[in-house]
Amino acid sequence: MTIGRFFEDFQLGERISHATPRTLTEGDAALYLALYGSRYPQYCAAPYAIACGFARTPLDPLLVFHVAFGKTVPDISLNAVANLGYADVRFLEPVFAGDTVFVDSKVIGLKENSNGKTGVVYVQSHAQNQHGNPVLQWQRWVMVHKRDPQTPTGHQHVPKLKTALTAAELPVPNGLRVPDRQDHYTASKKTARDYQIGEVINHGGGITLGDSDHMLATRLYQNNARVHFDAAYMQQQPAGQRLIYGGHIMSLVQALSYTGFENALWLAGFNSGVHANPSFAGDTICAHSVIREISVTDNGIGALRIVSFGQKVASNNTRPDQLFELIDSQTLPADIVLRWDYWLVTA
Amino acid sequence: MTIGRFFEDFQLGERISHATPRTLTEGDAALYLALYGSRYPQYCAAPYAIACGFARTPLDPLLVFHVAFGKTVPDISLNAVANLGYADVRFLEPVFAGDTVFVDSKVIGLKENSNGKTGVVYVQSHAQNQHGNPVLQWQRWVMVHKRDPQTPTGHQHVPKLKTALTAAELPVPNGLRVPDRQDHYTASKKTARDYQIGEVINHGGGITLGDSDHMLATRLYQNNARVHFDAAYMQQQPAGQRLIYGGHIMSLVQALSYTGFENALWLAGFNSGVHANPSFAGDTICAHSVIREISVTDNGIGALRIVSFGQKVASNNTRPDQLFELIDSQTLPADIVLRWDYWLVTA
Amino acid sequence: MTIGRFFEDFQLGERISHATPRTLTEGDAALYLALYGSRYPQYCAAPYAIACGFARTPLDPLLVFHVAFGKTVPDISLNAVANLGYADVRFLEPVFAGDTVFVDSKVIGLKENSNGKTGVVYVQSHAQNQHGNPVLQWQRWVMVHKRDPQTPTGHQHVPKLKTALTAAELPVPNGLRVPDRQDHYTASKKTARDYQIGEVINHGGGITLGDSDHMLATRLYQNNARVHFDAAYMQQQPAGQRLIYGGHIMSLVQALSYTGFENALWLAGFNSGVHANPSFAGDTICAHSVIREISVTDNGIGALRIVSFGQKVASNNTRPDQLFELIDSQTLPADIVLRWDYWLVTA
Repeated sequence: MTIGRFFEDFQLGERISHATPRTLTEGDAALYLALYGSRYPQYCAAPYAIACGFARTPLDPLLVFHVAFGKTVPDISLNAVANLGYADVRFLEPVFAGDTVFVDSKVIGLKENSNGKTGVVYVQSHAQNQHGNPVLQWQRWVMVHKRDPQTPTGHQHVPKLKTALTAAELPVPNGLRVPDRQDHYTASKKTARDYQIGEVINHGGGITLGDSDHMLATRLYQNNARVHFDAAYMQQQPAGQRLIYGGHIMSLVQALSYTGFENALWLAGFNSGVHANPSFAGDTICAHSVIREISVTDNGIGALRIVSFGQKVASNNTRPDQLFELIDSQTLPADIVLRWDYWLVTA
Repeated sequence: MTIGRFFEDFQLGERISHATPRTLTEGDAALYLALYGSRYPQYCAAPYAIACGFARTPLDPLLVFHVAFGKTVPDISLNAVANLGYADVRFLEPVFAGDTVFVDSKVIGLKENSNGKTGVVYVQSHAQNQHGNPVLQWQRWVMVHKRDPQTPTGHQHVPKLKTALTAAELPVPNGLRVPDRQDHYTASKKTARDYQIGEVINHGGGITLGDSDHMLATRLYQNNARVHFDAAYMQQQPAGQRLIYGGHIMSLVQALSYTGFENALWLAGFNSGVHANPSFAGDTICAHSVIREISVTDNGIGALRIVSFGQKVASNNTRPDQLFELIDSQTLPADIVLRWDYWLVTA
Repeated sequence: MTIGRFFEDFQLGERISHATPRTLTEGDAALYLALYGSRYPQYCAAPYAIACGFARTPLDPLLVFHVAFGKTVPDISLNAVANLGYADVRFLEPVFAGDTVFVDSKVIGLKENSNGKTGVVYVQSHAQNQHGNPVLQWQRWVMVHKRDPQTPTGHQHVPKLKTALTAAELPVPNGLRVPDRQDHYTASKKTARDYQIGEVINHGGGITLGDSDHMLATRLYQNNARVHFDAAYMQQQPAGQRLIYGGHIMSLVQALSYTGFENALWLAGFNSGVHANPSFAGDTICAHSVIREISVTDNGIGALRIVSFGQKVASNNTRPDQLFELIDSQTLPADIVLRWDYWLVTA
């Protein structure tokens, strides 16, 4: 049975070409809509996408992320104890229906933990399309089991990771522009200038998670991590039940955030993402965001650096006015399942 | 948090352009099939659709309806107490994969209720495609909260609504015809002449509802009414659980009705639709129909005015022979979740 | 209410043209991925499919099988007591998005059971595409109720069925070839020469079944057998709950088998399939395969005859080393839900 790589199986500088390239289609886009219900028109309305300067309707960048991420699972994290974090995630070019995504990774860091049982693997991953153009890059680090806890590997290389992209570094799709009469299509006149640093936005709504939903999603991404699919196995584990793929929560939060960020044009990248607590079927997730940085330009295109929180609805929920203090904290309350620091290019 | 408009926020004659136009694709059509299992070949078999005179495979009219309806939710019914009814729903032109639907509404009536707490809003909605051609129109009325129960608005305008389309008013797609050897594709030789007024048809089968199913559907339609998605919120409400979007039941009933209406060519419109009782996950729905009017013409294309009932399977179910008496009744038994009066253009 | 044909309704030699031809699309392919999570790149990555010699990305043969099979249900097995078996299933040509499948069957055997209550109907079914080319053929036999247990029909015709295809009989798509650098796309260098007869492969993983999942699948296939959908009806039956369509388990097993058969190029056909025990929502399915025959050729394309087992995870599971003894046994242990004997064309 394939159980994935152990810490000893990784080499610093090693390049891994991940199996099963994937052609994304309108079918994937429809499923993505059904899974999350996003209402951003650039991802579901061709005339609006074209008015924004896209050649045609781009696929939601998070759909591309999840599929590309899924490719890395068999080689990087099938045997992971925990997905520890992401950094420097950049959506370099739109991906369109019909495009094929190829994914590879390079091992950029290896650090054995002091207990000898586990180590942390750092990878830089890239997705490119069938023309060889890079469409997405990201770093992540995972804790994996050692095969042999008795024999130290000596690996102590921790790479220097980017803590955050600056506004000037954000990838912006060629030709991106604010459409005429944007508010006619989005029901909002808000631009980057209308937000304030420190402002907390309640995105409203709330979505209750189900096992069929998240399994459909995670299979669509061809992510084969057993923890998401096998209830019999998970009953033997501390969680006691299937874990929901963390990216599923990101997508739910992004879909809910349409109410509040209606005129966003492009998810340019993310600075970090923390799956602070696990999510399970039956949990209800709501979303709040803190505005962290605002960038405005002369050409009408701005950018918001946002920290969004996916929150499990519970009796003692963290209050919105407490969220600003949590945007960099090391620990997070039990009701916070996601803290996600990212940049939206917006009107 | 966006909670939708209150009664005071509507003005008689106001026009609302709804956000998020939507390009429908083959992906939506596949999901619609997976959600309901319809076997009408004109919506899933290109050679048959073309033999019927369509340019290519049309999307199921109810898929178009649900998507167009979903667009109106944030502006019209997010704050609704109840969806009271539909009238004069007309499917004016087929919508094909690749078409984009734009939706707007006009407020045609406002009537404050005597308790001062709520009012009824009547809207006339239109969907048009990317060529500016109207593809769908409908009226509906919803009860919404007043912001201020103490201050009367004086609104007492109830519009005159059409109670039913006549056969002569039905929109029929250009070039629609009965295909040669239709029974070869549908397994039925029945035409409009083979039905009798008052006849009750049991469509067989029965489908048990699940929360993942109806949430996938309702998200696909980008309908963001919280009552369908948020179990935590609904536990505080009288229903105690997520309500299933009423249109989901319509689509199930239509899919089941293939057994009985095999040679139907086009859902031309509906006269009324009553979601008489709520549906929840776990309910099993079966479908019966009463033939109300029959129209036959010389060119082989007829029409049936039908009243279909979605029925929750229960120990004391309303008997089929009791349904004819219920086609216009003000009240409906607890096992009837849908009464739907509509016209099918058929061989 | 349509309850399907009784034994007396079939005639030896009768040809039945099944209703509702079906155009398959990229939407169906995306849903199929979401339902099973298969990672075989020839079905999801256009550049790889083309490198394998396909004109474009073929649809997964099992998707085609399930859809074609679903067409036969209303005429053959709606009134079935049991689906007894399949034989001589051949995937003659790839089916691509946009193709339409037409299905017909011929009654090739009728055998009344000695109790007079039921009989076995044997059919030879064919699916052809819109060009009239056969794409799939199969035999199956089902036990159906007699309308009148008192009156014998005298039918005792059992056809001679093929027990297994030989390697020489396997349909191989025109132009099929092993792509250069196949292992770059599949992460495996294995070819037919690397397997051994009698070898047992554990495909790893395990997937827990859900009612929403299998109902979405079975509706997508337009299979309207009530046993899969109607929980209220099934509570009255011995099973007590909805039965999962047997083909759903085949597809799960095939998807899991990517780990082990990474370089398979084409599911050429199956020799037999036994749904030995029912599957229900909540069951967790894992997969093991026994290598039964190996065919190698000079042109680099080989074939594996495989017997795969879908196994319900339970406390007293059949051990992998016991599976070889079960490849032809008349009875199977309670944890085996599928025994499937088929041929994979592979590098």
